Amino acid sequence: MMDAMVIDLNADLGEGFGIWRLGDDLALLDIVTSANVACGFHAGDPVTIRRTCAAAVDRGVTIGAQVSYRDLAHFGRREMDVEPEELCAEVLYQLAAVDGIARAMGGRVSYVKPHGALYNRICRDEVQAAAVIDAVADYDPSLPVLTLPGSVVHKVAAAEGVPTVNEAFADRAYTPAGTLVPRREPDAVLHDPAAVAHRALQMAVEGSVTAVDGSSVPISARSICVHGDTPDAVRLAQGVRDTLLAAGVVLQAFA
Amino acid sequence: MMDAMVIDLNADLGEGFGIWRLGDDLALLDIVTSANVACGFHAGDPVTIRRTCAAAVDRGVTIGAQVSYRDLAHFGRREMDVEPEELCAEVLYQLAAVDGIARAMGGRVSYVKPHGALYNRICRDEVQAAAVIDAVADYDPSLPVLTLPGSVVHKVAAAEGVPTVNEAFADRAYTPAGTLVPRREPDAVLHDPAAVAHRALQMAVEGSVTAVDGSSVPISARSICVHGDTPDAVRLAQGVRDTLLAAGVVLQAFA
Amino acid sequence: MMDAMVIDLNADLGEGFGIWRLGDDLALLDIVTSANVACGFHAGDPVTIRRTCAAAVDRGVTIGAQVSYRDLAHFGRREMDVEPEELCAEVLYQLAAVDGIARAMGGRVSYVKPHGALYNRICRDEVQAAAVIDAVADYDPSLPVLTLPGSVVHKVAAAEGVPTVNEAFADRAYTPAGTLVPRREPDAVLHDPAAVAHRALQMAVEGSVTAVDGSSVPISARSICVHGDTPDAVRLAQGVRDTLLAAGVVLQAFA
Amino acid sequence: MMDAMVIDLNADLGEGFGIWRLGDDLALLDIVTSANVACGFHAGDPVTIRRTCAAAVDRGVTIGAQVSYRDLAHFGRREMDVEPEELCAEVLYQLAAVDGIARAMGGRVSYVKPHGALYNRICRDEVQAAAVIDAVADYDPSLPVLTLPGSVVHKVAAAEGVPTVNEAFADRAYTPAGTLVPRREPDAVLHDPAAVAHRALQMAVEGSVTAVDGSSVPISARSICVHGDTPDAVRLAQGVRDTLLAAGVVLQAFA
Repeated sequence: MMDAMVIDLNADLGEGFGIWRLGDDLALLDIVTSANVACGFHAGDPVTIRRTCAAAVDRGVTIGAQVSYRDLAHFGRREMDVEPEELCAEVLYQLAAVDGIARAMGGRVSYVKPHGALYNRICRDEVQAAAVIDAVADYDPSLPVLTLPGSVVHKVAAAEGVPTVNEAFADRAYTPAGTLVPRREPDAVLHDPAAVAHRALQMAVEGSVTAVDGSSVPISARSICVHGDTPDAVRLAQGVRDTLLAAGVVLQAFA
Repeated sequence: MMDAMVIDLNADLGEGFGIWRLGDDLALLDIVTSANVACGFHAGDPVTIRRTCAAAVDRGVTIGAQVSYRDLAHFGRREMDVEPEELCAEVLYQLAAVDGIARAMGGRVSYVKPHGALYNRICRDEVQAAAVIDAVADYDPSLPVLTLPGSVVHKVAAAEGVPTVNEAFADRAYTPAGTLVPRREPDAVLHDPAAVAHRALQMAVEGSVTAVDGSSVPISARSICVHGDTPDAVRLAQGVRDTLLAAGVVLQAFA
Repeated sequence: MMDAMVIDLNADLGEGFGIWRLGDDLALLDIVTSANVACGFHAGDPVTIRRTCAAAVDRGVTIGAQVSYRDLAHFGRREMDVEPEELCAEVLYQLAAVDGIARAMGGRVSYVKPHGALYNRICRDEVQAAAVIDAVADYDPSLPVLTLPGSVVHKVAAAEGVPTVNEAFADRAYTPAGTLVPRREPDAVLHDPAAVAHRALQMAVEGSVTAVDGSSVPISARSICVHGDTPDAVRLAQGVRDTLLAAGVVLQAFA
Repeated sequence: MMDAMVIDLNADLGEGFGIWRLGDDLALLDIVTSANVACGFHAGDPVTIRRTCAAAVDRGVTIGAQVSYRDLAHFGRREMDVEPEELCAEVLYQLAAVDGIARAMGGRVSYVKPHGALYNRICRDEVQAAAVIDAVADYDPSLPVLTLPGSVVHKVAAAEGVPTVNEAFADRAYTPAGTLVPRREPDAVLHDPAAVAHRALQMAVEGSVTAVDGSSVPISARSICVHGDTPDAVRLAQGVRDTLLAAGVVLQAFA
């Protein structure tokens, strides 16, 4: 299938804060086609945001706003019962801040990817999903939201006319239903570079993934998420890129 | 002089944070023509920013970004030795965030007013002044910076081609040199409503202020700053507005 | 019954942050016998903590540590899925900080009262309740925790040998089961000073409260919580105090 | 000289925040005799503080409170014009918090070491130095403050009866006057492990250091500061330890 041969690689970038660094941003920028730039609420001080945007623009990597709950102390990894008005305003604030910096660097924010606990929450919580989608619609309703296929936020976005883009995770185990095996379960995360690269290829070319029970699950992803927070993660991501290119897959941002 | 009969009234707005409020924003929005909206670094959470921008748009009040050092704990009132790259990125972040929210509410940021310790610092520190002006130039070099006439930031902005607008303070004592009497000195701040209103009128119509030694000092201000953090302050600001209007002065934003 | 004639009045104090104030602390300190001092995580900067502790010591008011989730932006009012190890360490940090300041002012922390969303959460979440109780036990297992009778945290504390003290709310409606009517329901909060004072008296002297269905519910409270965040709230609290004293009830801290 | 043969090695520890790490704490704890534990204002969340204190207690390493300006965004490296009352309360808060956690882990805070910009500022600013010393005196006037010999804070502490302990920096160049060569100058920091170890030995055994002009400067240090924020830094610190031990120097905490 022609469409399946074009895929985007996305990764979280700029996730340091002040003196602290996380991951090898420059290495990742040579691997991915889309950069989810942290917006300052779970990580990402203004200098880091500016440098990350500048480096992405230099390399032609598309910039996305990686919006989050306000939670530097726990990296946006704790679900919070935020009121919808607050959440909407917080997402709008982050999106606008990073888009403004990206524009000052010669680029722009071309999509939105919620981070961590917020990403998980809006896959099932309609109220918070609507708050996030409202913020995107208020800012620029043409900005796609990068999210999990079939999730609640997907439906909320469709109802509001905000586009969504499906992503898949090359290093995560899938259930036969096409959902991710929770991280707390054994074997939820794959570490073997060859296996991860092979899955990415299967996702891009065949539009499917082999679930934990051995069954083949259709998965329609326009983007594959890779990580870069350890040297091993960078090598894994490089392996995914190399394997896809070697198979003739075109790596191209969706936005 | 025709030009002196048009003046802007500006005030700091949206300076609450979370549960905490400061001043009567809605009362002030019926008095001023320009609203310096706190951007989240000394005050101003995203919900407050959004509500303040929406209320300003409703009333036709021009919105400015009141950028600050990152210092919620001390309301941006402590000078900080921030590196220029950091300061520039921090100002850019704040400016972009508030502009994005203002646009989502149907308005836009039309000027920049530095807050508190940053305001004072860039009146004399060329390096920090350049960092602030660089941020404005990076974002939108047509945005005027509201500042004290004759200050260092004024000169730095001129050199970079960023416009400035002069402001005066109706409730502050002036030296014969045209500078403000420091707050720590007795009688630095005027509290008598009639006296304050009269000074505002003198500033707007005659382009001058009576200094502490009784001399008349020329002062070329396009905007007069009023405050609203106490009920008395709101009454004082209302008195300034009423007196100016009664004298035929046109109240009009500069941007 | 003799025991019922001795009661403590507790209130939240020191809930400002930086420039922002909340409530009239000095007025409340003349009313209550126990001060729940905010510890810096939902409110309460170090200067405010020190001043509040000093004022409490001056007036012979007992000091408690009002520990919270880390959430200045939302005043500790959002439930958070904090890991137990984190929550325990965060509570320990707050408790130690305020106790150290209280001791430097000539007093000490004599009890612990969780704040806001944390207070509600540990009434039903055993894991978070255990994290809070572990922190108290680690710091000083003789410190009582002020909480709602019959709640989960009550049972967890008993199992760990940490004492608890029951509190009641004079201005809140109760269900026939003895639980609070949720704030979102109409008439959840009483505003009539005479009615609130009468309820406090009933709680102190008869050990009961009239529920929303008119039934009398036994309520064994050693402390009654009052509020002071508005002038009306202070008057309400003063009315409770005056009524109790006039009826011969002894106002005395529990710790 | 007998006294010179006993020396303390101190290092900054627990300087992560949330997800972010800085340096190899466990490696350093096997090298030093005193651990300057970050208190949460420039680095150090409660979990990290607790783990660091527990690990220090396990290894018999003495714990100090590394107090700082409130500045997570810039790691406490920017000088701030904090009011003395604020600074004093902030230092007291940090000191109490870490001491309380250390005690819960079976240890205690035995000394205070100011961090970064605060360390530098109080070497010359008498007002801020007095604020820090007041906090220590309020908490426990027997706690020594680890600082630079001959600095302003040294004199302020002496006047208030708070003990001080002198430290030296094995990897920093000294002027003939015995002060540190500022970091911005070339060769301000030594990187050669053998040279650094040799200087530490000279400091410990001879009580002197060779200044940049080749002169020998007497330096009376009871503690030598080492760093651990890079793998190279850990090796350098290990080299200092090994060299001192091989020369018969006794490594022993001062507190």
